[in-house]
Amino acid sequence: MKRILCALSLAVGIVFGLTSLATANDDLMKNIGNSSNWAIQTGDYANQRYSKLDEINAGNVGKLQVAWTFSTGVLRGHEGSPLVIGNTMYVHTPFPNNVYALDLDNDGVIKWRYEPKQNPDTIPVMCCDTVYRGLAYADGKIFLHQADTKIVALDAKTGKELWSAVNGDPKKGETNTATVMPVKGMIIVGISGGEFGVRGHVTAYSTKDGKRLWRAFSVGPDSEMLLDPVKTTHLGKPVGKESSMASWKGDQWKIGGGTTWGWYSYDPATNLIYYGSGNPSTWNPTQRPGDNRWSMTIFARDADTGVAKWVYQMTPHDEWDYDGINEMILADIKVKGKDRKTVVHFDRNGFGYTLDRVTGELLVAEKFDPAVNWATHVDMKTGRPKVVAKYSTEQNGEDVNSTNICPAALGSKDQQPAAFSPKTSLFYVPTNHVCMDYEPFKVSYTAGQPFIGATLSMYPPKGEQNMGNFIAWDAATGKIKWSNKERFSVWSGALATAGDVVFYGTLEGYLKAVDAKTGKELYKFKTPSGIIGNVMTYKHKGKQFVGVLSGIGGWAGIGLAAGLTDPQAGLGAVGGYAALHNYTRLGGQLTVFALP
Amino acid sequence: MKRILCALSLAVGIVFGLTSLATANDDLMKNIGNSSNWAIQTGDYANQRYSKLDEINAGNVGKLQVAWTFSTGVLRGHEGSPLVIGNTMYVHTPFPNNVYALDLDNDGVIKWRYEPKQNPDTIPVMCCDTVYRGLAYADGKIFLHQADTKIVALDAKTGKELWSAVNGDPKKGETNTATVMPVKGMIIVGISGGEFGVRGHVTAYSTKDGKRLWRAFSVGPDSEMLLDPVKTTHLGKPVGKESSMASWKGDQWKIGGGTTWGWYSYDPATNLIYYGSGNPSTWNPTQRPGDNRWSMTIFARDADTGVAKWVYQMTPHDEWDYDGINEMILADIKVKGKDRKTVVHFDRNGFGYTLDRVTGELLVAEKFDPAVNWATHVDMKTGRPKVVAKYSTEQNGEDVNSTNICPAALGSKDQQPAAFSPKTSLFYVPTNHVCMDYEPFKVSYTAGQPFIGATLSMYPPKGEQNMGNFIAWDAATGKIKWSNKERFSVWSGALATAGDVVFYGTLEGYLKAVDAKTGKELYKFKTPSGIIGNVMTYKHKGKQFVGVLSGIGGWAGIGLAAGLTDPQAGLGAVGGYAALHNYTRLGGQLTVFALP
Repeated sequence: MKRILCALSLAVGIVFGLTSLATANDDLMKNIGNSSNWAIQTGDYANQRYSKLDEINAGNVGKLQVAWTFSTGVLRGHEGSPLVIGNTMYVHTPFPNNVYALDLDNDGVIKWRYEPKQNPDTIPVMCCDTVYRGLAYADGKIFLHQADTKIVALDAKTGKELWSAVNGDPKKGETNTATVMPVKGMIIVGISGGEFGVRGHVTAYSTKDGKRLWRAFSVGPDSEMLLDPVKTTHLGKPVGKESSMASWKGDQWKIGGGTTWGWYSYDPATNLIYYGSGNPSTWNPTQRPGDNRWSMTIFARDADTGVAKWVYQMTPHDEWDYDGINEMILADIKVKGKDRKTVVHFDRNGFGYTLDRVTGELLVAEKFDPAVNWATHVDMKTGRPKVVAKYSTEQNGEDVNSTNICPAALGSKDQQPAAFSPKTSLFYVPTNHVCMDYEPFKVSYTAGQPFIGATLSMYPPKGEQNMGNFIAWDAATGKIKWSNKERFSVWSGALATAGDVVFYGTLEGYLKAVDAKTGKELYKFKTPSGIIGNVMTYKHKGKQFVGVLSGIGGWAGIGLAAGLTDPQAGLGAVGGYAALHNYTRLGGQLTVFALP
Repeated sequence: MKRILCALSLAVGIVFGLTSLATANDDLMKNIGNSSNWAIQTGDYANQRYSKLDEINAGNVGKLQVAWTFSTGVLRGHEGSPLVIGNTMYVHTPFPNNVYALDLDNDGVIKWRYEPKQNPDTIPVMCCDTVYRGLAYADGKIFLHQADTKIVALDAKTGKELWSAVNGDPKKGETNTATVMPVKGMIIVGISGGEFGVRGHVTAYSTKDGKRLWRAFSVGPDSEMLLDPVKTTHLGKPVGKESSMASWKGDQWKIGGGTTWGWYSYDPATNLIYYGSGNPSTWNPTQRPGDNRWSMTIFARDADTGVAKWVYQMTPHDEWDYDGINEMILADIKVKGKDRKTVVHFDRNGFGYTLDRVTGELLVAEKFDPAVNWATHVDMKTGRPKVVAKYSTEQNGEDVNSTNICPAALGSKDQQPAAFSPKTSLFYVPTNHVCMDYEPFKVSYTAGQPFIGATLSMYPPKGEQNMGNFIAWDAATGKIKWSNKERFSVWSGALATAGDVVFYGTLEGYLKAVDAKTGKELYKFKTPSGIIGNVMTYKHKGKQFVGVLSGIGGWAGIGLAAGLTDPQAGLGAVGGYAALHNYTRLGGQLTVFALP
């Protein structure tokens, strides 16, 4: 308890020093609030990926044209999206994480470029392609978080390096694929490496000079997790002392995973940041008895101190790699007739969760893919999923191949973010429709070596062809409103707009626009390569543009991206997605659309 | 003489065996004749790059849109263009020279792919980027000529390898960048490596089984050059015995260059093929006294036997690397009131030549860039340029830096092919507007090692900014009709159409359409990367499309392509083109345009 108090008092100290930094946050808030910009990867702090722009709308989107294009000069998976602040677009690439500032006033001329030298030894330590989910902007700075975990602050005007910090060590399997979230003069920074036994943490650095302000681990002692045994709650009850430690055997928490490579949200009203922690390490559940808290958990943490206000564990003692890092969308919707401040989360495990984001109360937990079979339902009192014995890889045991588990390890949805339209009150969710065989085996830990402990094979549900759906979801009732079949997983992030159009990309490379109310396809265009980037929009000189990065890769596209020919390679992804070879090749291009 | 006769009688023997192969040629002729296809890299045998399609015309080209795109999955310089035969598009890449057959009836789905494994040791032996100028089609086969000089015949329907042949040895610096020309059951095949002392040759292989039918060297003994001392003429006079050998000192012809990596033309009426030979090796002129015949020479050779009907040497004893390989455009135009069957050639040396293509008579030789200063004019009787002493790198001597020579080594035009419109009777020429400093030095020959012997620096003419012009040329009078300035060299091949539109690409990445009569810019679009590919057009399901490959590279783009930072590296190209870094990054994309 002494250590916790110590951490808390340190945090309080920081709060008092933050007055000037609050101004910095105002700058970003203003830029986010101006819908001409795309100032933050997630569209806004609520992760709604909703734009008030409506020049392009359901009535005219069919006439969309390609306005201009830009090759990033790098191949492999292009996740994330460019940012637009005023007359400048900031484009990133996968490893080696180059940055380009393009002049929108001058036909996309490159204002400056930042091309870091990184040790290529980092590449093999990246579990699922060399992706990077994009830059962040705040206070006149562009924040780059490299694959090797080096964080660099660049002058947004000149590209000059202002400071750098190091968040982890690739030699131990610690890498980065995520963007950072700037908030209140800090950047909130996660870490990757769950497949290498990395113990996840979230860290706040000062945007001013890169000084570390607080760090909160996902598993381990309260003092390191910034948990308050009394004030931090789980479904309304205090978590109690050392709630994580008690759910692990011995020292296993030290290599316990729970990495933090997803998207971060922030609610200025409650001053809470929201994110999910990843799978416990290893993938072999028999090897790590217990609930493995707080892996697979939604965290609501105070932005200033990092102390958790509440937690909710979706998949206690994970047996399927249902990594819980997917985005938290903050939305004010009516649930059972009551206005609720909710956080909505589409988990890898196939359940769409609606919680009260202030209290952590669980409101809805329903399957957003009918194929999901590993659990029958979520017990709304305990919050625990009711696991189906035949799909329990632990009950079936080590070295036994459990078959036809739905979803597959990459989940009913992975990192590809959903969007929310306040106009329709619907969530637009890019989903995977994929099942798997899963065979856990004993594995021993060596720092920097894969610590996976399972072999996988992934494929569409029996008797079906489509490996993905793009769905509209009613989070108040937990029901699919409409669903569009896709040949492959939809691995691209959605964009909803006030024009009642929803955009997303496909692994074959199509940018698609559908009617927000009905899902009817209104437009599609074949971009150069498969799309795993997120669709964004901005306005320049009075005209609305829609942009998206092409570049096949990511976990679903790892077979193509890494040139794998063994169907069992790439964490089992290659098999089901091998047909992608017939549709697209590697790329790395930005395509920007507008009306004529 | 005995050896010549021997070669000639061998050739006659081949002719008699060619009846079935003539049918094969008919197939290709028919496909070239159908303007819905783009059946040959050069548009047609005459290298006119003119299409009869006129749906897209000067009146509506401003409304052009991007119809679809395809990423090739390979970076660096993309020269050449796709082919279209019926409902299939065949796309190539630079090294490793992948081939993709795209289904135009089915949204560009990849019907088959051929991805050769090549030894990457070939890359450093390629002088000026890993470019490849594209596939050829004939008789149901797609012909791939790899960088390592392996020629592969693929079944056009399935991509199955039918045969292969090897044309050279990369260990000796012999590589390939050119397309092959299919004609009469043969493919006509050149070789690269002038910067490695490779002695150039042209070889005919049977399309049926890859059997070598004839080979004609550019320099050396008559018997190996397939020269007839009596019947082969130079400006109307017999060349005489051993005309090449007499123009070299000792055995220097054996490493004498004259490589053959340009574009080939064919005139069915005369049964002659036309092409140019490259620079003599080394670039240090003092080291190889004599006229170095028949480097820098236009050859007209009998297609069946390979025997030369006439030759014309443009730059005897080259002192500037004015490599003579640029395309020969066959056009029937009126010169001085007389209908002439001409061959028109825009040489690296900055002169535009018009010759009678039947007799080899020199009709016109005028500068197509006003900056050209190394020679005052071409003597129309002797055909020799009148060299200006101060720009003679030989007269200035070894280890002396000759400055402000125009054009630079990459010429007033390089391989980027011009187009001809029979409607306007004008030639549309992508040009370089670049000068150089040139310092020759002594170099000794080692097989497979660079044999260059000069250091260069290239830049725009004094007091000017633009490094390129796109011009319209009247080949009857040798005059520029109109000229559009470009910031950089126009390194993309032009396309002229019956719609009175001329298309070309720029190093910044713009596809441009201009009025064929006036040069007025009617349309431009920023493709993903710099364009060094050639614009092509085709018709599918009644609609006209225009396609072009993006992908910065080639000699002008070698700085970007190879990631060079030393301004003196890359054969001196980097300095002048360094500003390209501000406009574009590496890429490899096909962009296809159509009207809405």
